[in-house]
Amino acid sequence: MINSSSNKQIKNLSQLLKNAKTRRKQRVFVVEGRKMYQEVPEEQLLMTYVSESFYADPEHRKLLEGRQVEVVADRIFASVSDTVTPQGILCVVKQKEYQLEEILKDQQTPLLLVLENLQDPGNLGTIFRTAEAAGVQGILMSDDTVDIYNPKVIRSTMGSVYRVPFIYTADLYETVQELKQRGICTYAAHLKAEKEYTEQDYREASAFLIGNEGNGLSDKLTNVADEYIRISMAGKVESLNAAVAAAVLMFEAKRQRS
Amino acid sequence: MINSSSNKQIKNLSQLLKNAKTRRKQRVFVVEGRKMYQEVPEEQLLMTYVSESFYADPEHRKLLEGRQVEVVADRIFASVSDTVTPQGILCVVKQKEYQLEEILKDQQTPLLLVLENLQDPGNLGTIFRTAEAAGVQGILMSDDTVDIYNPKVIRSTMGSVYRVPFIYTADLYETVQELKQRGICTYAAHLKAEKEYTEQDYREASAFLIGNEGNGLSDKLTNVADEYIRISMAGKVESLNAAVAAAVLMFEAKRQRS
Repeated sequence: MINSSSNKQIKNLSQLLKNAKTRRKQRVFVVEGRKMYQEVPEEQLLMTYVSESFYADPEHRKLLEGRQVEVVADRIFASVSDTVTPQGILCVVKQKEYQLEEILKDQQTPLLLVLENLQDPGNLGTIFRTAEAAGVQGILMSDDTVDIYNPKVIRSTMGSVYRVPFIYTADLYETVQELKQRGICTYAAHLKAEKEYTEQDYREASAFLIGNEGNGLSDKLTNVADEYIRISMAGKVESLNAAVAAAVLMFEAKRQRS
Repeated sequence: MINSSSNKQIKNLSQLLKNAKTRRKQRVFVVEGRKMYQEVPEEQLLMTYVSESFYADPEHRKLLEGRQVEVVADRIFASVSDTVTPQGILCVVKQKEYQLEEILKDQQTPLLLVLENLQDPGNLGTIFRTAEAAGVQGILMSDDTVDIYNPKVIRSTMGSVYRVPFIYTADLYETVQELKQRGICTYAAHLKAEKEYTEQDYREASAFLIGNEGNGLSDKLTNVADEYIRISMAGKVESLNAAVAAAVLMFEAKRQRS
């Protein structure tokens, strides 16, 4: 049992929870909580850590069968956990690399999401969860978007992080051009657009471009889009929350496609 | 200038920011930040507090013309602020009381939202913002829903809290029955519903019932609803985020109505 906070594994866990660079370097991330643990794909699971109390419950033992497990003193576990009320289980999971080629394979009319510089962890997690529900096949993100492996993002995906393929790209502009070359129509949500989002046909291959929470889409990315769409708003609202805007667009596409 | 953290007004501000009971008792709430300050309806604004640095900027003085203002030492202002990087301005605002009668007046085909026991401040704020954008005329909430005057909720409404009428009710079941008696069709979003949400007609008087984040709608409230609707989900998603589900429904109603 691990009893000391200076234990190497514990120190590394802390770093992995706090630091995107460390996660990137080791190509792993940390998942906390029982439900999220149960959804980890077997082949990505590297190591499981449980608190002493968690381990003491026979019910919990079943969950750990055949897994490589380290038991950690409650006090040490609580100190490393990212949550206020730790559930007593966390694990280290291998990051998965996706290729655009692979995402688009077998997709006649893919539905994609392109995210530029999103900053709010809750927003990104919610977008992943909503995207899976709406039948989106992949999410492409600029490098400066918040890290999908940030513990708060992981939690708010509710497991969709394991199931929705995604790619971080250094040059989102180039990626969008590649989508266009592949015949995918790119739609920029823009306040100045003339066409309402409900007036477009998303049954063909489509990608929605969603911009940063405060500033919206950059001019560069806006200019490269095939079509501009507007979500008209009543009252004095200046913009929608990014996750809400993405949801409205994705579910309109889903409605048209079903 | 206020220089001490034991100043009565400062102590009261702290209480108002932290404590829903204090807010209810005094029938006021606190709004922080320049943008949210500018949107406060004149007749609700009671008192403005600015930091010394904020007040030193001549640009800012214009904002304060004709207002009752107290200047607070920077260090004291920072200690009372609910935000990590205080903008140097906050104010005390009178709560507004709405009546159902008044909300429904002049509405031929109202669109309402009914929220049961929502707990996440960010969700509630986002729902208000989205509701205003979707043209919702009023939001009815159970007493155990998170306080709309919670500083985090206020911030995430982005000003919609001033413009979307709302009512907290001790008996949401009775309120929903009253809506029905007034000829408003009540729709319960429910995973087990047979009809897809896109198959209903929301151009008549409609109200969407949205349940708690973890548990959904209570059986009691589900049973009293006129119609059940389902938002079908692809993949392995078990539910949508409450604010996302509400957004999808409200914008479908908006689409049908325009």
